[in-house]
Amino acid sequence: MSEPRLLPVVDGAPRVRRDAVRNRTALLEACERLVERCGLDGVTMDAVAAEAGVGKGTVFRRFGSREGLMAAMLDHTETEWQASVISGPPPLGPGAPPWDRLLAFGHSRIEMTLLHADLIRHAGRAGMRSYAAYSFAAMHVRYLLTELGVSGDLPLLATALMAPLEASVLDQQVRVEGIDVERVYHGWVDLARRVVANPPRIGA
Amino acid sequence: MSEPRLLPVVDGAPRVRRDAVRNRTALLEACERLVERCGLDGVTMDAVAAEAGVGKGTVFRRFGSREGLMAAMLDHTETEWQASVISGPPPLGPGAPPWDRLLAFGHSRIEMTLLHADLIRHAGRAGMRSYAAYSFAAMHVRYLLTELGVSGDLPLLATALMAPLEASVLDQQVRVEGIDVERVYHGWVDLARRVVANPPRIGA
Repeated sequence: MSEPRLLPVVDGAPRVRRDAVRNRTALLEACERLVERCGLDGVTMDAVAAEAGVGKGTVFRRFGSREGLMAAMLDHTETEWQASVISGPPPLGPGAPPWDRLLAFGHSRIEMTLLHADLIRHAGRAGMRSYAAYSFAAMHVRYLLTELGVSGDLPLLATALMAPLEASVLDQQVRVEGIDVERVYHGWVDLARRVVANPPRIGA
Repeated sequence: MSEPRLLPVVDGAPRVRRDAVRNRTALLEACERLVERCGLDGVTMDAVAAEAGVGKGTVFRRFGSREGLMAAMLDHTETEWQASVISGPPPLGPGAPPWDRLLAFGHSRIEMTLLHADLIRHAGRAGMRSYAAYSFAAMHVRYLLTELGVSGDLPLLATALMAPLEASVLDQQVRVEGIDVERVYHGWVDLARRVVANPPRIGA
C-alpha cells in the first residue's frame, strides 16, 4: 500500500498536465469537427466521445456537462482569436496601420461572435462573457484608438465600440431583425469613423 | 350546478381583468417598497405577500416564482419609464429640443438600468431583455436622431447608442471596473456627440 499523495510528484506532474491539455484540445477539436459537419445540435457528449475516440465518461469528467463543453468551446475559439490579434497575419495581427487593424478587429469580432452565437446560447450561464476575454479585446481597441491619435475617455470609447459587437446585440440584429451581416459591419465602420474622426470635447 | 363557462361573460370579464390588473399593480408596488426598505435580498414571496396583505399563494399564482416576480418588476419599471418618454415632463418627455431629449434619454436609461441591474440578475433568464422594450427605446432614439438631422443608417446608429447602455455592459463598468456613474454618463454624451455631429460617409 502506497502512502497517499497530497502533493503532486514533481517529476510526474508536468507530463500529466501536458497530457491533460493535449486531451482537452483533442476533445475540443473533435467538437469543432462535429459543429462543422452537423451543426451545434449534433454535438452530444456521446458524439464528441465517439469523434475523439474516447469514452463518454472522459468527456463528462473533462467538461462536467454539455453546457460546460459549450463554454469550453467558447473559450477555445476566443483564445484562437486572441492569438490571431497578438501574432497572426495583418491586418488583424500586427504590422498593418491602426485603422486597418480596427476594421479587421470589427469584422473578425462580428464573424466570430455570430458564428458562435449558437454556442453562447447553448452554453447558458456557463457561457456568459468572460471578463478576461472582454478585457483583452477592450485593451486592444484602446491601444488602436491611441495609435489613431483619438483623445477623450478612451476606455469608455472602447466600450462604445465593443458594445454593439456583444453577442446579444448582434444576435438580435441578425436573427431577430433579419439585418444583413454586411450591413451590420458597415454600420460598425461608420460608428468607428465617427468615433475616430471627431475630436473630443469634454462635458455635456 | 351551473354550466361550465368556456367563454368569459361579456359583462363580467372587464371587471375581473380590472381587478387582476389592480392586484398585480398592488403586489408590484409592495415589492417596490420592500426593495427601497430592504434591498433586493429582502424581497421574498413571503415578504411581498405580507407587505401587500395577501396570502403567499396569491403571490405565487400571480408570478409563478421569485424569478417571475423579478421579471414582472423589470417590466413594470420599463413601462413606467416608457410612459415618461411618451407623456412625461421634458426633457425626457416631449417638448424639449431633440438633443436635450437624447441626453435625458441616456441619463434616465443609465439610472434605471443600474438601479435595476440587481433585478435583472435576480430575474435570471426570465429577465432577459424584452424585445418589445428594446424596440421602444430604439425607435425613440431613431426618432431623435432624425429630428437632429443625422443621416446614415439610423437603426444601426441607434443600436450603437443603446448598446453601451445594456445592463451587462453598464454593470461591468460600474460594478466590476468601479467606474464612476457620472463618468459613464459623460462618456455616453461624448459618444452621442460624435455620432450626431459627424456627417456620415457610406462604405468602408
